Amino acid sequence: MDPAINYCSHCGAPTTARIPLGDHLPRRVCDRCGIIHYQNPRLIVGALPVWQDQILLCRRAIEPQRNKWTLPSGFMENGETVAEAALRETREEANASIELDEIYTMISVPQINQVHIVYRAVLRDLNFSSGEESLEVRLFGEHEIPWNDIAFRSIALTLRHYFEDRRAGSFRFHSGDLPPL
Amino acid sequence: MDPAINYCSHCGAPTTARIPLGDHLPRRVCDRCGIIHYQNPRLIVGALPVWQDQILLCRRAIEPQRNKWTLPSGFMENGETVAEAALRETREEANASIELDEIYTMISVPQINQVHIVYRAVLRDLNFSSGEESLEVRLFGEHEIPWNDIAFRSIALTLRHYFEDRRAGSFRFHSGDLPPL
Repeated sequence: MDPAINYCSHCGAPTTARIPLGDHLPRRVCDRCGIIHYQNPRLIVGALPVWQDQILLCRRAIEPQRNKWTLPSGFMENGETVAEAALRETREEANASIELDEIYTMISVPQINQVHIVYRAVLRDLNFSSGEESLEVRLFGEHEIPWNDIAFRSIALTLRHYFEDRRAGSFRFHSGDLPPL
Repeated sequence: MDPAINYCSHCGAPTTARIPLGDHLPRRVCDRCGIIHYQNPRLIVGALPVWQDQILLCRRAIEPQRNKWTLPSGFMENGETVAEAALRETREEANASIELDEIYTMISVPQINQVHIVYRAVLRDLNFSSGEESLEVRLFGEHEIPWNDIAFRSIALTLRHYFEDRRAGSFRFHSGDLPPL
């Protein structure tokens, strides 16, 4: 995923791989300035915005999965909270204003070093439109969801949980991994 | 927090700060190989292990907050799930075997670009002991908790939620930020 850490990003010297004192995994370490260059999973945060019985989805304008549909979501940034990331991504990708409900799903995707978090949310109005990273933004009823063209498995899983919980009459927080392919 | 990205960790050339095409924030970009060096929040994952009405805490052997008490927790690693991180940290810091219950708290700490996640958990047995990063590991009843010597505010908040929910007779997932100091 991430490019190899061949050089120290701080001082520019070559790095070597070794297990630091008190650690248990090999890390890229700078032999000149001593910095240990840890690599850790990233958080992808988004929202499931609802208008009456419809869900807002965005058709992606960028790779990966260009042209496929997804919930507004993206990489959490330094300096923001998880909730702020969900609001920002929804604004950027769908020019949509939402009110966040509870955190709804948290799905680990260790194959690509990511954790995906989605909030339930309510659209404040219908003034949404495609942001720079979207080709199209629209509302879908349950029976219109383009299941074969959903961009990411974590998003499809979140949507399945949503419709199941809605039928059951109560929403609960879901956490876990992706089911095997 | 993180050291400045002065050099490209991939090819070693100096980086410059600019806003990449289609982005909205300045990033460190390599002008030689083109890599954009994103920096994102890190996940700290831990467990709140319970034995009857007692909670397991670890006294830290390392900085920051050496000598202070905390729940077993630490940086999530690439290639693992959130649940695996909680189990591993509990094994490493307390040599303890636990059964994970639900995710209990998720607290954003944007000041230090972190998100803290804690699971409720049950100790399988009393065969725990100090791991390399702990000076001491022991069980505490509610009235023995060393509130003035808890290492991190997110951990104190998680413990307060736990005792409140236990008194109320039901546990629910808590997410949010730290209250103002």
